[in-house]
Amino acid sequence: MNKSQLETTDRLSPRWDANGLITAVATDAGSGDVLMVAMMNAEALERTLATGEVHYWSRSRQELWHKGATSGHVQKLMEARIDCDQDAIWLKVDSAGPACHTGAQSCFYRRVTKDGRLAR
Amino acid sequence: MNKSQLETTDRLSPRWDANGLITAVATDAGSGDVLMVAMMNAEALERTLATGEVHYWSRSRQELWHKGATSGHVQKLMEARIDCDQDAIWLKVDSAGPACHTGAQSCFYRRVTKDGRLAR
Repeated sequence: MNKSQLETTDRLSPRWDANGLITAVATDAGSGDVLMVAMMNAEALERTLATGEVHYWSRSRQELWHKGATSGHVQKLMEARIDCDQDAIWLKVDSAGPACHTGAQSCFYRRVTKDGRLAR
Repeated sequence: MNKSQLETTDRLSPRWDANGLITAVATDAGSGDVLMVAMMNAEALERTLATGEVHYWSRSRQELWHKGATSGHVQKLMEARIDCDQDAIWLKVDSAGPACHTGAQSCFYRRVTKDGRLAR
């Protein structure tokens, strides 16, 4: 598909990058807060849609990552939205616990100040 | 900085990828909707913090992209938050117009259905 077709089609046609990935942004379906940004390959996307639980592709471990499989903090998919050129997906999730491995609710637990400092 | 230091420091230390970029997620400061996902290089981030108007790095044009410079749909930065490992940034913005070049308020104007169709 060309750019215009990607934007107007009613068929999901992810534009995978050189590594076969798209960017996924998970937000809390209740608060709207951005919880995390991660990557998905075709299998992760397929399993997410099929099971209703979010799966990512772990670049550090190079394996399919069923979020919460070990921690119990699964992310139940409430809605998925694809962007205009189909290289990013927005996942509205109901998270069973903190999204961040640090224990924070969201990975974005620090605000950036104008002078380049981080504040909690 | 190592992983643990990146997570706990109060100093902004973006973990640039091989192309010198981090992922930026812009949300509407009012509704919380995800508007777009784009990339930032060091200059884009610096200008965004300095001017209070969002700048990205355009991969297709390979140039600094002051969002809205031509369309007038500038994104006023209300808050920026960095993630745990500092390779993604969440921008809460007040957008002067549609974020998407298609004219849609958000680039994520299509919902993904379970059977892989897209619905408006």
